Amino acid sequence: MLNDVLTTIDGRRDQTLALLKDFLSIPSVSANPANAPDCRRCAHWVADQLKFAMLDVSIMETGGHPCVVAKNKHVPGRPTVLVYGHYDVQPPEPLDLWTTPAFEPTVRETPAGTQAIYARGAVDDKGQVLCHIEAITAWQAHGGLPVNLTVLIEGEEEVGSAHLEQFVRQHRTALKADVCVISDTNQFARGYPAITTGTRGLVYQEIIVKGPNRDLHSGLFGGAAPNPANVLVALLASLRDENGRVTVPGFYDDVVAITPEERTAWKLLPFSEPDYRKDLGVDATIGEAGYTAQEQMWARPTCDINGITYGYQGPGAKTVIGAQASAKVSFRLVANQDPIKIREAFYHHIRSHSPAGVTIEFLDHGVAPAYLVPPNHPGLPAASRAIETGFGKAPTLIRSGGSIPIVSTFKKELGIDCLFVGFGLPDDAVHSPNEKFDLDCLHAGCRTAAALFAELSRG
Amino acid sequence: MLNDVLTTIDGRRDQTLALLKDFLSIPSVSANPANAPDCRRCAHWVADQLKFAMLDVSIMETGGHPCVVAKNKHVPGRPTVLVYGHYDVQPPEPLDLWTTPAFEPTVRETPAGTQAIYARGAVDDKGQVLCHIEAITAWQAHGGLPVNLTVLIEGEEEVGSAHLEQFVRQHRTALKADVCVISDTNQFARGYPAITTGTRGLVYQEIIVKGPNRDLHSGLFGGAAPNPANVLVALLASLRDENGRVTVPGFYDDVVAITPEERTAWKLLPFSEPDYRKDLGVDATIGEAGYTAQEQMWARPTCDINGITYGYQGPGAKTVIGAQASAKVSFRLVANQDPIKIREAFYHHIRSHSPAGVTIEFLDHGVAPAYLVPPNHPGLPAASRAIETGFGKAPTLIRSGGSIPIVSTFKKELGIDCLFVGFGLPDDAVHSPNEKFDLDCLHAGCRTAAALFAELSRG
Repeated sequence: MLNDVLTTIDGRRDQTLALLKDFLSIPSVSANPANAPDCRRCAHWVADQLKFAMLDVSIMETGGHPCVVAKNKHVPGRPTVLVYGHYDVQPPEPLDLWTTPAFEPTVRETPAGTQAIYARGAVDDKGQVLCHIEAITAWQAHGGLPVNLTVLIEGEEEVGSAHLEQFVRQHRTALKADVCVISDTNQFARGYPAITTGTRGLVYQEIIVKGPNRDLHSGLFGGAAPNPANVLVALLASLRDENGRVTVPGFYDDVVAITPEERTAWKLLPFSEPDYRKDLGVDATIGEAGYTAQEQMWARPTCDINGITYGYQGPGAKTVIGAQASAKVSFRLVANQDPIKIREAFYHHIRSHSPAGVTIEFLDHGVAPAYLVPPNHPGLPAASRAIETGFGKAPTLIRSGGSIPIVSTFKKELGIDCLFVGFGLPDDAVHSPNEKFDLDCLHAGCRTAAALFAELSRG
Repeated sequence: MLNDVLTTIDGRRDQTLALLKDFLSIPSVSANPANAPDCRRCAHWVADQLKFAMLDVSIMETGGHPCVVAKNKHVPGRPTVLVYGHYDVQPPEPLDLWTTPAFEPTVRETPAGTQAIYARGAVDDKGQVLCHIEAITAWQAHGGLPVNLTVLIEGEEEVGSAHLEQFVRQHRTALKADVCVISDTNQFARGYPAITTGTRGLVYQEIIVKGPNRDLHSGLFGGAAPNPANVLVALLASLRDENGRVTVPGFYDDVVAITPEERTAWKLLPFSEPDYRKDLGVDATIGEAGYTAQEQMWARPTCDINGITYGYQGPGAKTVIGAQASAKVSFRLVANQDPIKIREAFYHHIRSHSPAGVTIEFLDHGVAPAYLVPPNHPGLPAASRAIETGFGKAPTLIRSGGSIPIVSTFKKELGIDCLFVGFGLPDDAVHSPNEKFDLDCLHAGCRTAAALFAELSRG
């Protein structure tokens, strides 16, 4: 039966691509309130595909952008698989760095000589969601899926899945499953398909420093009037020491150290620091002393500034002291850091370093803990065989430095673990201009998703 | 004769206001290349007014925005007065904080209960330039000016008068004069007209920190990839110590200390630090230990950040490491700091603090030294009498924390000093949203400018 399903998938490459172009042309940017109607339209698009696959589909309200929930007819005794993904995408800015517009999906050759589709969301996560939709559709065309399936596609992953936690709690029974499958990670490298066994957590905050009640002339007032940016840069600089360690008190208290076994296994992976630097165009990587770049990205916590806005940003000079300055700052967490504890420690650190003359406000843009898949999870060998069917090569076990906020909620509320079976490549420019998804990866992803249903049906 | 001129000015308040509205409606933002045609149009507007006053007028190219140069017929034996001003204005951003649009001049009541005209450039410097145009026009209507007059109105003061220095050097003979009059400063307070005897200098620079060759996902790359903003904030924070002193080596080496006499005189002025804080809406002022806010603004050098741009600045969260981060930074200088020496020390400080993994670039947005009027300059008593005629009250001697880049060039190239006779108020919101010029100040300014020609004609 799986062979028939795979034959169908192999024969639909053009249709799959056409569907993906349609999906990618919807600017479902969850962070921007102006795109709220587009997010809703995108939810309907996903719902329509799943209806076409003969699932029972609901668009469900969350208080934010809606979720799509779809099921086949659940048969007692069969394992239940929850497929989770997201239809929302990161903001496309800076727009001028896109070779072709972010929401006009275009197929062209990659620097590596492969063919890829370029658009915001190509791989994160619309392309990978489509792999599952295509696998489901093919199975349904051949007599039905071999598992009980629940599909949950949300619209707020890129803004911290703010409403999904409550949604999962409220629909605990409807979402009950034995395992969750997520395709929102990537392969280790071209030719190195992978299963991701851990993701980092996230504490994403905004600091707003308010000074004078209006913008001031920096000549007439400078020297006496508090400058919110002078304060902001000192506060931000105080978050890290010269060795790249985060200085927020207690930040490292609960960090689980990398084991010698992990260090050894990771060092065997084909990762070259010179190639990594060359790819990024930098003459050095950063990070704490004693850790490789790979270890730093997978298993050490970080503090990165993601945005700053202040004063005059146009061409030339304006001699102004701005009324306020703000920065978006995020911490990536590792097991077992508690995001709430880290957030509060950050607030306390900033407040205790703030001088007179300004006031400080915070905006919380979401928190999520790190997550590790139990090493003995029975889904891991099943996923491994599915990837071998899809990609023609057994996968490597890796970690991701990224965060998937909802996985800890699935663990807590549904009692299930997640299998991260990702089809992208590290050079897909996720969250950056010219995001892409290689067409071969798209196809192998569809095949893997189809094979995974067969593998999971066994047990 | 002066009385007839003043009577004419008193009878023209409505026409003066109508002219100013016309002048202010031209968005002559010198910093923004998109406004270059507006700057040129504004030069023509000024030229037309001066032609109407029967002067010989030329619009002269500088390599940037043009200058307007106008003269009456110079008669041997009479003193020659150079009136300098600028028709360009600061950028109007942030636009949403303007009560009425920046380039739709509107008369309304001020918080102090007076009537004022609100627009970008109202007082800096279009309103004050118009005072001189009105005074010239009135004198010409009564048989001609009592002095040899040269008017020089430039279009690049707000961007550091980049081309004017060379222009003055090239037209040294044509611009030859005995004294320069500049109305681009303000009174000490409402009811306290003033002559400004010193301005601060300026070193305005932009730092660009370049990191990875593209924006990166802060989860997938964070911890190993250099973050240009993390570097930028550390560099900016390194420019000042905890006590508000600038840490660039050698920065204070040449600073002329405030004399005990100046300290005593300034303390007699009606300046209240609690009122100052209340006006700004802050709970504290800043500055070096041992200096009042007034001393800090008038006679101490500063380092202020004027703009920062980096990463994602929209609503919500984007987990990105930006490819570059940049900041506009300016130093206000006092006598006898050398702006070139300070600029080079700044470059050296930044470069020597820059870590591996990023590259640093600088953009120079202009430098100018501080300037002090010689205390025994014969123009000072003349200006004092003119202000008494215009405002009905003798002026105070004050300093300004602002900079007028060209004055040191006039000193060097033409051998003349400048009289700063300013008509604005400290609450005019110069360089800020809702810039204004009180109508009573506009009128008193026209009268003062008229009287000043009479006073200076006496030699």
